[in-house]
Amino acid sequence: MTRRSAVPPPVTAVLDASSRWLPERLGRVEETLREQVGGHGERLAADAEATLAAGGKRLRPLLVLLCAGPGAGEEAVRAASAIELVHMATLVHDDVLDDAPLRRGRPTVAASRGRARATALGDLLFSRAFALLAGHGDGRAIALLAGASVALARGELAQRNDAFDAGVSESRYLERCQLKTGRLFECACLLGHDAEPLGAFGAEIGLAFQLLDDVLDVAGPAERTGKARGTDLIDGTVTLPFVLAAALDPAIGAADLGALDAAAAAALCDRIAATGALERVRARALETVAAAKRRLAGAGLDPERRRLLELVADGVVQRYS
Amino acid sequence: MTRRSAVPPPVTAVLDASSRWLPERLGRVEETLREQVGGHGERLAADAEATLAAGGKRLRPLLVLLCAGPGAGEEAVRAASAIELVHMATLVHDDVLDDAPLRRGRPTVAASRGRARATALGDLLFSRAFALLAGHGDGRAIALLAGASVALARGELAQRNDAFDAGVSESRYLERCQLKTGRLFECACLLGHDAEPLGAFGAEIGLAFQLLDDVLDVAGPAERTGKARGTDLIDGTVTLPFVLAAALDPAIGAADLGALDAAAAAALCDRIAATGALERVRARALETVAAAKRRLAGAGLDPERRRLLELVADGVVQRYS
Repeated sequence: MTRRSAVPPPVTAVLDASSRWLPERLGRVEETLREQVGGHGERLAADAEATLAAGGKRLRPLLVLLCAGPGAGEEAVRAASAIELVHMATLVHDDVLDDAPLRRGRPTVAASRGRARATALGDLLFSRAFALLAGHGDGRAIALLAGASVALARGELAQRNDAFDAGVSESRYLERCQLKTGRLFECACLLGHDAEPLGAFGAEIGLAFQLLDDVLDVAGPAERTGKARGTDLIDGTVTLPFVLAAALDPAIGAADLGALDAAAAAALCDRIAATGALERVRARALETVAAAKRRLAGAGLDPERRRLLELVADGVVQRYS
Repeated sequence: MTRRSAVPPPVTAVLDASSRWLPERLGRVEETLREQVGGHGERLAADAEATLAAGGKRLRPLLVLLCAGPGAGEEAVRAASAIELVHMATLVHDDVLDDAPLRRGRPTVAASRGRARATALGDLLFSRAFALLAGHGDGRAIALLAGASVALARGELAQRNDAFDAGVSESRYLERCQLKTGRLFECACLLGHDAEPLGAFGAEIGLAFQLLDDVLDVAGPAERTGKARGTDLIDGTVTLPFVLAAALDPAIGAADLGALDAAAAAALCDRIAATGALERVRARALETVAAAKRRLAGAGLDPERRRLLELVADGVVQRYS
């Protein structure tokens, strides 16, 4: 559950279905990100730009902009950019934490340029996020983003504390998901518009996203995910597929996680899959997405934005179907 | 120039000279730091509290409180706490960057608990700083602190880019000092009171602080600094004593920094010292402190605060005398 997926969801489907305002604003977010990441005269700008270009889904900015709606001003573009900067910072630091060689099929900054540079680059991206918002007095956005950043770090620490503990409970796993993933998705929606149903929608699709990411770590295939199967297990990270499978097959729970090599991890993945746990977790994710979509009924959205947010929610599921 | 000194300056001299308001407020900063660092229910709280207890000088909070003065409200206590959280975050991350075994004579979080935990702990402390300020709508403080945090990360990256480059110029070194140390001291003063002479005072004593820290890395002794002599050189960090010495003794500039072990680093330190470069850097630091103190004349301070700020400036020098 450390890394988020390498497979882009159909953001394009959302853009295709949208009227012109949304692609135009996402373009302004890209411009803002390039401004924030570049222009500090260090050779490192190249690393930051590689991180930016490796890109990813811009799912969090999309949520900010959709929740904010077509009538929102530049503060929505800034908030969308800032949350992506924080997300990028956590990815760069995650790769330091995990000594990860690859992300999205490319060498990580940590691997290609060293831990020191990666740690400092993450700190820079993180600082830039707050500087961007502070420069315009976006106080509500800063409070939301700082709160979510605290949650992210707490989630990371909780995961480290649980490492190699095969007895992690489902509720503990869900708590970690909420901290590590749910809170930033929730924050994205609330940055766009301060409405409780939107926050709940974000938290739920964040959870579904993480559940499916954790399925993918077990299911692979590596060509699709850009990383080896069982990478989480090798890192000692117990996720829901393992927790449910261990309840069905005691040999799984008895595995010595500290002693797994790549072959043993792949074999353990097969054994987890054989219990049917992956289908259960996928079903849980689908239910969570359905629940998220029902939240939108109470959010007072115009029909276009509701439809587009439903497409985002569907995209979280479809990328794994 | 990576680590700041292990030797506490005479903060006690400042407190002794102050009327009751200052110790009372520094006490509230300690309380706030304990609140912010503890209470998130993770085992890691122990690491954070160890970092807090290892303590250090609280020099930046002291500057915030002195510049804010006795009439300031709780926002000065929050700003003083927030800047110390950012400072602590950078120390924890610096130890990850450097693989440092010791800080202030104790094992670092990175060494005792692993890089992963240390990276995440730094992120947590950093996030807490902004969350603390954002929770009270301290917009000006957030903008100042975010700007200084960007500078810190840029300074770190500049240092990494320059690593093992024996040809670093004096002006490049001074630029790095300003980013890595000066800006946070400047920020501390401006957090207290928005007056240009105070900001300049902070930047200058920050520079003097760094200059003397870099002398100490060469001069030692290890029993006093809590780290081996020449640690910066082994890390590839070229500082002003090296730059000035290399201009006087070409063999120094020709040293292969990438190949230094502890004994070779100590020998290089001796050679640097033999050029008289350390006295020159010390003299530069003293001049900088004197210039900083002259700034205070234009800051419109009451006599007590001016005297106390002068004591802080003297403290930066005295700890090395």
